[in-house]
Amino acid sequence: MIEELPQRTELSTLGEFGLIDHLTKDIQLVNPSSVTGVGDDAAVIDNTDYQTLVSVDLLVEGVHFDLTYMPFRHLGYKAAVVNFSDIAAMNGIPKQIVVGLAISNRFPVEAIEEIYEGLQTACKKYKVDLVGGDTTSSTSGLFLSITVIGQAKKEAICYRKGASANDLLCVSGDLGGAYMGLLLLEREKAVYKANPAMQPDLDGYDYVLERQLKPEARMDIIERLQAADIKPTSMIDISDGLASEIMHLCKASELGCQIYEDKIPVDPTTISVAEEFNIVPTIAALNGGEDYELLFTISQQDYEKIRKIPGISVIGHFTEDKSSLLITNDGQAIPLLAQGWDGLK
Amino acid sequence: MIEELPQRTELSTLGEFGLIDHLTKDIQLVNPSSVTGVGDDAAVIDNTDYQTLVSVDLLVEGVHFDLTYMPFRHLGYKAAVVNFSDIAAMNGIPKQIVVGLAISNRFPVEAIEEIYEGLQTACKKYKVDLVGGDTTSSTSGLFLSITVIGQAKKEAICYRKGASANDLLCVSGDLGGAYMGLLLLEREKAVYKANPAMQPDLDGYDYVLERQLKPEARMDIIERLQAADIKPTSMIDISDGLASEIMHLCKASELGCQIYEDKIPVDPTTISVAEEFNIVPTIAALNGGEDYELLFTISQQDYEKIRKIPGISVIGHFTEDKSSLLITNDGQAIPLLAQGWDGLK
Repeated sequence: MIEELPQRTELSTLGEFGLIDHLTKDIQLVNPSSVTGVGDDAAVIDNTDYQTLVSVDLLVEGVHFDLTYMPFRHLGYKAAVVNFSDIAAMNGIPKQIVVGLAISNRFPVEAIEEIYEGLQTACKKYKVDLVGGDTTSSTSGLFLSITVIGQAKKEAICYRKGASANDLLCVSGDLGGAYMGLLLLEREKAVYKANPAMQPDLDGYDYVLERQLKPEARMDIIERLQAADIKPTSMIDISDGLASEIMHLCKASELGCQIYEDKIPVDPTTISVAEEFNIVPTIAALNGGEDYELLFTISQQDYEKIRKIPGISVIGHFTEDKSSLLITNDGQAIPLLAQGWDGLK
Repeated sequence: MIEELPQRTELSTLGEFGLIDHLTKDIQLVNPSSVTGVGDDAAVIDNTDYQTLVSVDLLVEGVHFDLTYMPFRHLGYKAAVVNFSDIAAMNGIPKQIVVGLAISNRFPVEAIEEIYEGLQTACKKYKVDLVGGDTTSSTSGLFLSITVIGQAKKEAICYRKGASANDLLCVSGDLGGAYMGLLLLEREKAVYKANPAMQPDLDGYDYVLERQLKPEARMDIIERLQAADIKPTSMIDISDGLASEIMHLCKASELGCQIYEDKIPVDPTTISVAEEFNIVPTIAALNGGEDYELLFTISQQDYEKIRKIPGISVIGHFTEDKSSLLITNDGQAIPLLAQGWDGLK
């Protein structure tokens, strides 16, 4: 990846301030609440009668991404989007990000430029302002820290807690695709390592590759819920896998749940790739991370409204009984286990 | 340092969520604007008629700190404080931080606990809430990313730009101490490496060691300026060295300056350590970083007011002429050169 860049400028030729100027010269602020962006000790964000949401995510080379198949531009895009998704999960709208970037000097300036291009592409698409950052060297590896600031009316904010027994558990989009994309990329990497002359064979896999390399934050779902006058009683985004996220919601509301295997949305491409890897598609959906879909609960009385919204599946309901059960296709009730991704293992 | 910890718990025994619970269980929110802290997808911060300030700083092992002489607790404290200083530099008050921490599993849980203890000690002292974080593993090294959110009335915010010719250039406290502390620690490290049986000889150096290991953000100066009804016309904090920061202010206001060597505040301990290292104390003050004092300009008409505030030195003034000059003790005018610390060199 690094060698493919048409130009190679050593980091030290620009220096820290030169690099910041260089990276941020084209940034234009679009949100009225962004009073001042990059270039001072702090960004300035105006607030009226909204509440501010803040979230941080750290992406570490070799832990969260592999540069052998993750282009820098996609890395920047994904880093921004997964943070926007955290704000969506609060029923808010992302407005600003600040970026911390630590990079070893084995990377040329062009690599950092591409990361910033990805960040800015995501910011433009989601109408978010990049308002500040800190760029420094690292002794090894690439570290990206993104802090996102979002906005929501106080009464609109959805927490992880707040659900009641019998509330319906809903999920947007489909699940397991990002994980299948990752397995494919890992397989192609292994093939390439064994024989660099082999061309990667990724035809027909576009959907799951895009799920892994270029995920989106479901702001559209937030808008549709608002348009339908539905306020989720609890919400989270699916970064670590459905089972793990369900557990978070159950724990926060001190409830259990029953979900139905046949209701879990899985795309046909995900199913066929899962079968290629001898993985039960439901397991991919339950434990595969990085789908960045929204998992939320609604009151039963909103059922008729939610049915009319495309792209949302009702997969089960919360129960007073604190056990979390998966009702399988053959009618068995088995305990849900959170085996999602753990950044510390 | 790591070996000295009385207990060693492997990171993997807790897992990511266990670790977050463990680290954040004692955190109590003190600011009314902190609606929700750690434990959801995003923190929730309320705003009334104030503007929000946001800044991020990244601290990288081997680049910004050396764990052979920087205790984890101090690292956490310093990481928080240098961010508070960024908000002070805007004439604002820090209110919340979010923390990104990437750590290799060569560190035990106790190391992370100590970092968090340092962060929380700083938060408590400065009445700031730790409202969120992301903790993950790294393939090597320790990375700390702190994003701080602050508050200020719109009309109170001081930018780097805004100064006029003839405005007086002021600096809080004294300069060069943190750099002398660093040189001392580096010397002791070299001695220890050559002969581990040697005991470090750091008696009488407390002041400069504390400047390096436990800097403070000058919120007291912000309060004193406000009490004296002085609003700086421009402001920045001194993280990279006086000369470099003066250049930032000059550039932002499109002005030059004259500063006087005999007005630059340097502590007697700093002078004696500088002499030990054969460094001209003025050079240490101009180019040594990490003092986290405030550099600001005021209108000439505020001179009588500023004179009465202890701990502030007037070191020069801004000029229409864009050259930046140091008037030396023997009356020569020499161009100021910014040779401050650069995180990318």
